[in-house]
Amino acid sequence: MILINIGDELLIGQVVNTNAAFIGQQMAAAGYPMTETLTIGDDGDIIRQSIENAFQKTNVVILTGGLGPTRDDITKKVLCDIFHRDLVIDEKTLKQVTDMFAARGMELTETNRQQAAVPEGCTVLTNPLGTAPGMWIEEEGKILIALPGVPFEMEKLIRDEVLPRLLATQNERNLIRYRVLQCTGISESNLSDKLTEYEDQLPANLKLAYLPRPGVIRLRLTGEGSDEVALNKVLDEQFEKLQFVAGEYAFAADDIEIQEVIGRLLANGNKKIATAESCTGGYIAHLITSVPGSSNYFEGSLVSYSNDVKRDLLNVREDNLKRRGAVSEQVVSDMALNCMGLFDVDYTIAVSGIAGPDGGTAEKPVGTVWIAVATPIRLVTKEFHFGNRTGRKQIVERAAQAALNMLRIEIEKDIR
Amino acid sequence: MILINIGDELLIGQVVNTNAAFIGQQMAAAGYPMTETLTIGDDGDIIRQSIENAFQKTNVVILTGGLGPTRDDITKKVLCDIFHRDLVIDEKTLKQVTDMFAARGMELTETNRQQAAVPEGCTVLTNPLGTAPGMWIEEEGKILIALPGVPFEMEKLIRDEVLPRLLATQNERNLIRYRVLQCTGISESNLSDKLTEYEDQLPANLKLAYLPRPGVIRLRLTGEGSDEVALNKVLDEQFEKLQFVAGEYAFAADDIEIQEVIGRLLANGNKKIATAESCTGGYIAHLITSVPGSSNYFEGSLVSYSNDVKRDLLNVREDNLKRRGAVSEQVVSDMALNCMGLFDVDYTIAVSGIAGPDGGTAEKPVGTVWIAVATPIRLVTKEFHFGNRTGRKQIVERAAQAALNMLRIEIEKDIR
Repeated sequence: MILINIGDELLIGQVVNTNAAFIGQQMAAAGYPMTETLTIGDDGDIIRQSIENAFQKTNVVILTGGLGPTRDDITKKVLCDIFHRDLVIDEKTLKQVTDMFAARGMELTETNRQQAAVPEGCTVLTNPLGTAPGMWIEEEGKILIALPGVPFEMEKLIRDEVLPRLLATQNERNLIRYRVLQCTGISESNLSDKLTEYEDQLPANLKLAYLPRPGVIRLRLTGEGSDEVALNKVLDEQFEKLQFVAGEYAFAADDIEIQEVIGRLLANGNKKIATAESCTGGYIAHLITSVPGSSNYFEGSLVSYSNDVKRDLLNVREDNLKRRGAVSEQVVSDMALNCMGLFDVDYTIAVSGIAGPDGGTAEKPVGTVWIAVATPIRLVTKEFHFGNRTGRKQIVERAAQAALNMLRIEIEKDIR
Repeated sequence: MILINIGDELLIGQVVNTNAAFIGQQMAAAGYPMTETLTIGDDGDIIRQSIENAFQKTNVVILTGGLGPTRDDITKKVLCDIFHRDLVIDEKTLKQVTDMFAARGMELTETNRQQAAVPEGCTVLTNPLGTAPGMWIEEEGKILIALPGVPFEMEKLIRDEVLPRLLATQNERNLIRYRVLQCTGISESNLSDKLTEYEDQLPANLKLAYLPRPGVIRLRLTGEGSDEVALNKVLDEQFEKLQFVAGEYAFAADDIEIQEVIGRLLANGNKKIATAESCTGGYIAHLITSVPGSSNYFEGSLVSYSNDVKRDLLNVREDNLKRRGAVSEQVVSDMALNCMGLFDVDYTIAVSGIAGPDGGTAEKPVGTVWIAVATPIRLVTKEFHFGNRTGRKQIVERAAQAALNMLRIEIEKDIR
């Protein structure tokens, strides 16, 4: 299956193509994996060539965009050209468009009327949310599905019209299912080394992919097959094995962020949390509060960027600041413990490090970060080196991921 | 120019293709509009065919993805095939990768070493943020640019390596130059109305584009010409006019963030700042501290997410919390003023609002945000409504932009 998205706004990056992700996901889940996705501009010749090329490689082409009131002439005419058909008014659609305009107290112009024009003999996919209908054209074993580009209109048509029709037209299905395991605390290449044996023993219809971002590696285990039950069984078996091999590095057997994992743990345990942040500058608090409902377990944060604030507001001992330095085990310990009393919470995270580009020394180079996590019964500290070439932003992101992961491990200990 | 994104995760919609939007935007701005964008899977044959097909239609192909250390990455082998070259170790990259691992206290495996392998004779685009370098291969008038798929690594390479090289190869008869003006505090359509006359009077070789993101509209004035001096002259003239028309809404005549503008103002004036954040949850502190050197002017932040913390740590009056509610002019005023004494600074920002999805009322719907800025001699407050359809993340981003903009305006008043 090939997807063609039409729209200059996509090519110049004015709009991010979320349609491709939605359709790709829906079709993969239904057993119609996309083999390619093409984005082109509003140009009749290019649209025509792209559709013809696509049909050289596949039997099903989905087209989005190019059906609005201002440019429907192009795409619909191209479709008439390719399939040698005339443009005719679909009476049902015309009535719907007329009613829609009447409901808004507006009169139908000729441009609006043309919204109801479709290539003769096509199946009209009624669009209840807009004026441009979808179209399904089938000829000599080839299927072309044209949909409006407006995301919510397209999504409704995919769910209500396209998927049921696709599932009805084909008996032999190639199902695709996947599982996601998220890991942290290990580099991509080290994780890859760790998983070599595991990957070698995978059945031929299963594949493991690595999707890294700062501090997190998402592992996607994808399986292909024709029997849903058998496919899910082998995926579950291999996914369990994967979780075992990844061990402590895995933080979520699901496509969620670590702050959501922590949010669930805290909400379930009815516990509260606060953070004391230096080099992460509020980023951990930002991640925690990006989760809806976080006000139920997050009290607040003291971002103590200067030593004065560490000493005056967080009661970090002057002696520790002077003798050990702000980036030290002693200081993050003070921060984590005093943060607990200050905010009256069950768990705290404290971070102090050198995010760069300046401020590094031979002893404590840029990328050095001390993290402490305090629980009702434990204080855990750890030193990290995130590398001085990584860049300020990435050091902050990695430190935040590492801190949240340390917290997750501690909360999970308490739950067991 | 054609962009090819490689990655199964894009085809099955697990990841939204933001790279295509970024590259499309950057290239359009530099005078290389994308004619098509293709997404394909991690399959050697398809990668090869797609690159060869693309070169039938264009002279420049950008490739993203498929360069990581793991086994789903096969792109480099395909490039060697197409350009009949061997894979050789690039010593500079090898040293960089080795150093990067050493800095994190990790040893280099054979898999890591292969990160430094590139097709013989290609120009290596050094990737300071990751281990997979970019590659620039030029042959018989065709240019292939291969970049890692990780967004922040790709973005840095596009800005620092790809664009300067592309501009250098540009035919001298058709120069493209641009200026960027960033605006905030106004909607895209209102700004567009304000600029109608300005746009109408632009010379034919100049074009104005709107590049919006939550809370900020970047205006890009692009000019085309054959004479560098004349082109820059007309661009400068028209850019000055644009700044005049945009007036107070413009916060940077450059491609920098508002927190960098504020950082310069504070550093120049030798002033200090702190924030008191409720609904923004530390995001403003995070933005401020994302600027290198911010420790010179940023003292810290009290993220007071709960009412207890607002009352106990920020001395917000109980009476105001009870009678006016946490999202009120009185409470943000208390927060901003008390924050000033607590952190001993010259300027403070305080924000309290309803980020949603829950917590809205008829009187204060989701998206209602109160912001206060305190200066040594003034307290300024303002209510915003960012809409309840916008989503939690966007409300936080817009609130942060609005708050930083209010602060910028106040600091600029003091400077004048």
